[in-house]
Amino acid sequence: MTIRKVKIMGTGTYLPGAPVTDLDMDARLGTAPGWTRRMTDVAARHFAGPGDTASSMGAKAAWQALEAANLTFADLDCLVGASGTKEQALPCTAVFIQREMGMEQSGVPCFDIDSTCLSFLAALDAVSCMIAAGRYRYALIVSSEIASVGLDWTHKESAGLFGDGAAAVVVGPAEDGEPSGILGASMRTYGAGALYSEIRAGGTKRHPRGPLPAGPEDYLFRMDGPAIFRMASRLLPAFTQELLESTGSAMGDFQAVIPHQGSAMAVRLMRKKLGISESQMVYITPDHGNTIAASIPMGLHEAIRTGKLRRGDRALLIGTAAGLTLGGLVLDY
Amino acid sequence: MTIRKVKIMGTGTYLPGAPVTDLDMDARLGTAPGWTRRMTDVAARHFAGPGDTASSMGAKAAWQALEAANLTFADLDCLVGASGTKEQALPCTAVFIQREMGMEQSGVPCFDIDSTCLSFLAALDAVSCMIAAGRYRYALIVSSEIASVGLDWTHKESAGLFGDGAAAVVVGPAEDGEPSGILGASMRTYGAGALYSEIRAGGTKRHPRGPLPAGPEDYLFRMDGPAIFRMASRLLPAFTQELLESTGSAMGDFQAVIPHQGSAMAVRLMRKKLGISESQMVYITPDHGNTIAASIPMGLHEAIRTGKLRRGDRALLIGTAAGLTLGGLVLDY
Repeated sequence: MTIRKVKIMGTGTYLPGAPVTDLDMDARLGTAPGWTRRMTDVAARHFAGPGDTASSMGAKAAWQALEAANLTFADLDCLVGASGTKEQALPCTAVFIQREMGMEQSGVPCFDIDSTCLSFLAALDAVSCMIAAGRYRYALIVSSEIASVGLDWTHKESAGLFGDGAAAVVVGPAEDGEPSGILGASMRTYGAGALYSEIRAGGTKRHPRGPLPAGPEDYLFRMDGPAIFRMASRLLPAFTQELLESTGSAMGDFQAVIPHQGSAMAVRLMRKKLGISESQMVYITPDHGNTIAASIPMGLHEAIRTGKLRRGDRALLIGTAAGLTLGGLVLDY
Repeated sequence: MTIRKVKIMGTGTYLPGAPVTDLDMDARLGTAPGWTRRMTDVAARHFAGPGDTASSMGAKAAWQALEAANLTFADLDCLVGASGTKEQALPCTAVFIQREMGMEQSGVPCFDIDSTCLSFLAALDAVSCMIAAGRYRYALIVSSEIASVGLDWTHKESAGLFGDGAAAVVVGPAEDGEPSGILGASMRTYGAGALYSEIRAGGTKRHPRGPLPAGPEDYLFRMDGPAIFRMASRLLPAFTQELLESTGSAMGDFQAVIPHQGSAMAVRLMRKKLGISESQMVYITPDHGNTIAASIPMGLHEAIRTGKLRRGDRALLIGTAAGLTLGGLVLDY
């Protein structure tokens, strides 16, 4: 095991507009008061307004992360967009975040890394190797999602789950003597589950001028929750065990376990299947919903903000994503 | 300068269907015979047929690259999609390539890296750091593009430039004593040029249910060629000089310069501005067109196939992408 000597320097988040309560959602979905809360455990989520874009929200989270890191934009060596959805098909979302930050003349390299809900984890994995290899020094990773635009309101349980928002993390080198580092990461993708969560249009396959027509419903998010749940249940325990062994960790070593908040049920499943205690688990579903790839860095931000994760503490980031992909990363904060 | 001890193990390409000649294009565009050839220097490009998807083309290129590397799919540690366009909005294209290869139960990690036309370069840059850091051993990078679906046929000069196709590269560690390695890479993004090439819809900003409407024309590729040309002309010389200095290289050291084939004019500009000789330049525009992010790995494949680039030779990959991003990478093949 080679520890990557990198450090989470600062984090930030942005949630657009006023919270949309579970009762607001019941009214919007036409369900009995209490239904949304009971089915999803999401008491409040935020929805982007007409003035919000993925990049404008991402820029706000990014400034907060830079301030927390005590760095300026000029210190950055790259800006990585790490979202499951894009702002537009081309160019990459990171470019628009750079523009929204007013840094369009900076030259700071922009690219996106996409592994749907695990995009932040995949980006942190890749970027930390780039820092360890001396390619970059300070990197800004931004996950920003507008889930609401693609919700199928006739699929009430799924529509009740999601929220919009952005999270940003500045990563840099850990100096000698500092306790921070990444002990290891693992990803596994089983394309057999690719059709369990999809937005079928938006690319070259289903296109207004393509061989397959793209109807309005093809731009909406579809999810077969039970199928994902079954596949994740089957694969997660051995996957996690292997990651723990490869990093010389036991579940009890983590002060914070930061899961992708796919749903309340998914987080419960993880707790039970993986033996995670209630005090370890960072559970932000009730006041965020599932914010796609922003979910894990938001959880990281909340764990730091609330003092659950302190400098030198060990954390596990873990989750599943459309793909189906399993991902985990062990770090000493 | 730390050399990343990584090696291009094998390459492959796939061009769909029969070549579409410049005279075919003149007929389709309603221009006089000879117009397309004169304006674009593209004598033949390929267009995906109804049976082709980005992932099916990518899978074919990937098998060829694996065979050239003398490796099997089971040797791979990750599969990276590196295209400027996606097959569908979610999940990432790499997942669909894994499926098309019949490897949907393999667990091989899949994610996409997007820096539009420089996605392959950005992916090679990131993945080679992951290999150097010991995170992965063998990585498959696949760029696959169906430009044709998004062409605006009323914008004849732009429509005449593009072609479809896929290219794949297997990267692995260079053993001690092997001459291969990456000497350095550089990227610079100037979001001031973000609107010079765009596909405005396909994401969360312009969406059938979004705050901004997405009309059929928003799914088409728009390019302000002259503006890109001016910006690239101004920025490329100093950018390249800096990359050469940081890698201890001079332009004369390269047996092959593999540019993004944005257009015949862009390649000519690069030759002139950067002092690249005709024999160094890998120029595949006439029989490929601009294949977006597949362009650079296709050029790499052709340079190897034709013997222009031999084991141990030094190559420069270089280009500009929507963003506007400049990118370059120096490697000993």
